[in-house]
Amino acid sequence: MWTVKVVGLGLVAVSLSLELLDRFLRRLRSGRTRNEVLFFPSEVACVEHLFSPSHYSSFCSFPHSVETSFSRLLRCILSATSSLDICVFAFSNMDLYRAVLALHNRGVIIRVLADKDYTAIPGSQIWSLRYSGICVRCGVGSVYMHHKFAVVDHRLLITGSLNWTLTAVQSNMENVLITEEPELVQPFIKEFHRLWECSDPARLHCAIDQKPADCLAVTDTEVELMTEL
Amino acid sequence: MWTVKVVGLGLVAVSLSLELLDRFLRRLRSGRTRNEVLFFPSEVACVEHLFSPSHYSSFCSFPHSVETSFSRLLRCILSATSSLDICVFAFSNMDLYRAVLALHNRGVIIRVLADKDYTAIPGSQIWSLRYSGICVRCGVGSVYMHHKFAVVDHRLLITGSLNWTLTAVQSNMENVLITEEPELVQPFIKEFHRLWECSDPARLHCAIDQKPADCLAVTDTEVELMTEL
Repeated sequence: MWTVKVVGLGLVAVSLSLELLDRFLRRLRSGRTRNEVLFFPSEVACVEHLFSPSHYSSFCSFPHSVETSFSRLLRCILSATSSLDICVFAFSNMDLYRAVLALHNRGVIIRVLADKDYTAIPGSQIWSLRYSGICVRCGVGSVYMHHKFAVVDHRLLITGSLNWTLTAVQSNMENVLITEEPELVQPFIKEFHRLWECSDPARLHCAIDQKPADCLAVTDTEVELMTEL
Repeated sequence: MWTVKVVGLGLVAVSLSLELLDRFLRRLRSGRTRNEVLFFPSEVACVEHLFSPSHYSSFCSFPHSVETSFSRLLRCILSATSSLDICVFAFSNMDLYRAVLALHNRGVIIRVLADKDYTAIPGSQIWSLRYSGICVRCGVGSVYMHHKFAVVDHRLLITGSLNWTLTAVQSNMENVLITEEPELVQPFIKEFHRLWECSDPARLHCAIDQKPADCLAVTDTEVELMTEL
């Protein structure tokens, strides 16, 4: 009879423990899954403390210690510890450029995919990124690369309507969606990989709107043109 | 002793049932929460069957019964049963216009927020939407309304880099994110409401980048100008 009692109570204890463990893990998981939406235009505020926490610029006339949509976006980008994949149509915002450069100097692996036409526009920071030693590729073909997304550490997606420009941040009505939801992040990681491979000037030439299997061999002249970019 | 056995086994049964019920509910919940990402350009395919399922157009030279990114986007929009709130910078795609019109004719409440400058561009369907009796509002002020999102039935968010144009759908590299995640959907619902109130020409005039509390009273001339749009 003691055996029956012990087995019965043991089963109850195990079952309840499993239930509690499961709830704890679920809470832990949902607590970790970040979902956030930012709207722009952002208030203008000083962001120097995000680049050097001990720094205080007495020359800066903007409000200090104010959390804005832009400072949250910057924080999110600066949270990268291993990699940052950027795929943006327009990139001219100096603070975002500084953030990417800071990460590059910290050893974070940066890859930038940009639209080939926008690259040539005055104010574009794509050239500065290249001069800083950051790997940048531009799509080939006649289509616009109109994406505005980035993936931090292969786990955090930043996407939306916002181009990485000052006008978009300070003037336009824009949105940025930040999520760690794997069902949303994984397709962007795959698409970045596909576009990155398709835009490799040294290996293949394929229309960026084709699947890698459809890629065509590149001519020597085309390789030269692409490498010059 | 029988009592002890019955109570022990009863507790085990209850505990296991709770565990199973919880797992079932979780699966049901996660099964309902739609998360999807579409990439563009989309393959070109016939979409007539989405508008009239029994219809077969022998004149259409595009592939039939092909599921594409665009057909999935159209399906998603056409799934609206009570409301569709659209907030897009550019709206000139004829199939998307037909989808919105079809929903309007079915009694779905449609609200469209558009950029005031884009509205005047040839090819824009904003005028056609207005002529069809759909409620359209345009932002005031000098900023661009650069959003590209829609909310179906106050529960399903469609957002991304894609303007509602033919070029965006068939040529550009674009993304559309579809989600029912409340943490992501709710902020867009609130922002739409804020922008919609701010853009009401009959009541208030506020810069669209200000909070409703900052709104200023509109002058008669301004009301006229806005109502004419």
